[in-house]
Amino acid sequence: MNSYEKYVKAIDDKRTYLCIGLDSDINKMPEGIHKTPEGVLSFNKRLIDSTHDLALSYKINFAFYEILGSAGFEIIKKTIEYIPENVFVIADAKRGDIGNTSRAYADSCFNYFKADSITVNPYMGKDSVSPFLEFTDKIIFLLALTSNPGSNDFQRISTGNKEVYQEVILKSSKWASPEQLGYVVGATHPEELANIRAIVPDNMFLIPGVGTQGGNIQEVLKSNMNKPAQINVSRDIIFAGNDEKFAESARNKAIYYRDLMRTI
Amino acid sequence: MNSYEKYVKAIDDKRTYLCIGLDSDINKMPEGIHKTPEGVLSFNKRLIDSTHDLALSYKINFAFYEILGSAGFEIIKKTIEYIPENVFVIADAKRGDIGNTSRAYADSCFNYFKADSITVNPYMGKDSVSPFLEFTDKIIFLLALTSNPGSNDFQRISTGNKEVYQEVILKSSKWASPEQLGYVVGATHPEELANIRAIVPDNMFLIPGVGTQGGNIQEVLKSNMNKPAQINVSRDIIFAGNDEKFAESARNKAIYYRDLMRTI
Repeated sequence: MNSYEKYVKAIDDKRTYLCIGLDSDINKMPEGIHKTPEGVLSFNKRLIDSTHDLALSYKINFAFYEILGSAGFEIIKKTIEYIPENVFVIADAKRGDIGNTSRAYADSCFNYFKADSITVNPYMGKDSVSPFLEFTDKIIFLLALTSNPGSNDFQRISTGNKEVYQEVILKSSKWASPEQLGYVVGATHPEELANIRAIVPDNMFLIPGVGTQGGNIQEVLKSNMNKPAQINVSRDIIFAGNDEKFAESARNKAIYYRDLMRTI
Repeated sequence: MNSYEKYVKAIDDKRTYLCIGLDSDINKMPEGIHKTPEGVLSFNKRLIDSTHDLALSYKINFAFYEILGSAGFEIIKKTIEYIPENVFVIADAKRGDIGNTSRAYADSCFNYFKADSITVNPYMGKDSVSPFLEFTDKIIFLLALTSNPGSNDFQRISTGNKEVYQEVILKSSKWASPEQLGYVVGATHPEELANIRAIVPDNMFLIPGVGTQGGNIQEVLKSNMNKPAQINVSRDIIFAGNDEKFAESARNKAIYYRDLMRTI
């Protein structure tokens, strides 16, 4: 089963777009969890135990592990190994470099970490993205229009009758099939999301920015028109509680989001 | 001494713009070096022993270590620890994400790895770059016009009377002082390099793309007009030999490049 089929099966089983982001900041560990790399792994395992039946996928934000150095990289690996086979895994690493370097990043993500998917930055163009696409059984999420305020700085510069992020989508969508190439589109831009859907009706969207960042789920669902998507919530679920019942609090918050994000 | 002062001292001592890229691909280890993480570390140490008096800086290409997983991350750390204090260190990691995530990446680079400098992708805008700039004693190299063919795909899209990479430079140059913010400009674009120098006369350039990628050093030096720069050569130096005398071959090649890149 390739990663796209795994996604399709997961969404059939779970009937939700919910992707839980493991932004497991060591400084925010709840009561009863040590502020050590082993503590972070234990935190992740308890979250996975309490939410894996609710979530379509887990998104691992590499930065919160790289801050721990090599021990953090080991925890990414052990976390992915712990995630049940039927749950989709996104390496949120935002990599991208010249060809031979991107090839090494892709190898790290897919052969070492064994993720289903990776987020890739498009700024360096086709030969920086192609090495990831050579893993034809995986899904690549290219940054298009991100959820943060800085998305206005360069992504939204006008290029005449389009904006930069639209140029990224139009050009890159010719590089691979919709089952292999998805886009990161922030929930904080619901109108643009609908417009992007018109350009690429079949590609999967990874949609961050609901929860702490303020995106509205109903508007996102409407704009996405029941097309392939994964809607990420990170901090609002994983740090829902900060006492010893944190995994239960996370489960309750995940149920709330799962239900809000029901497929039609 | 902050990283900019370290650069100034290094260039005074060495009188060259040479930056050696440690793209230490495990599959290319020379005779006598094991194709293991420990082998890669030993390769790096012997290269550093044989070239540290010639190079202004070492650039660590994270991808070639991440392919080895947590062991690779450990080797980045041990390599940086091994580099003499008076040689500048660039973490070539091309990171960039929303604010709280970029903060974690910056922390990893500067507090864990203790690099002088990091390469950052500008696509996500100001709040993705600012957390790196908060380390005011370090130097951030923002990707502007990269050396690869894909630089034509999005960086060179016309925005009316400018191109995207020029918008990146114009806007970002207001975010920090020239001593703190540099730009990656590929040696494969010597004409544009001269034009960029006119826009940002004082910022440091990290210039990849000579050697294997084909950029011409004389043209680069002319375009850069003796302004702050580091010109990177990776494969052409570190893989100059593939027998047991590889460190001596690398030294000879580094001398060749050092002399070609003499400051005026």
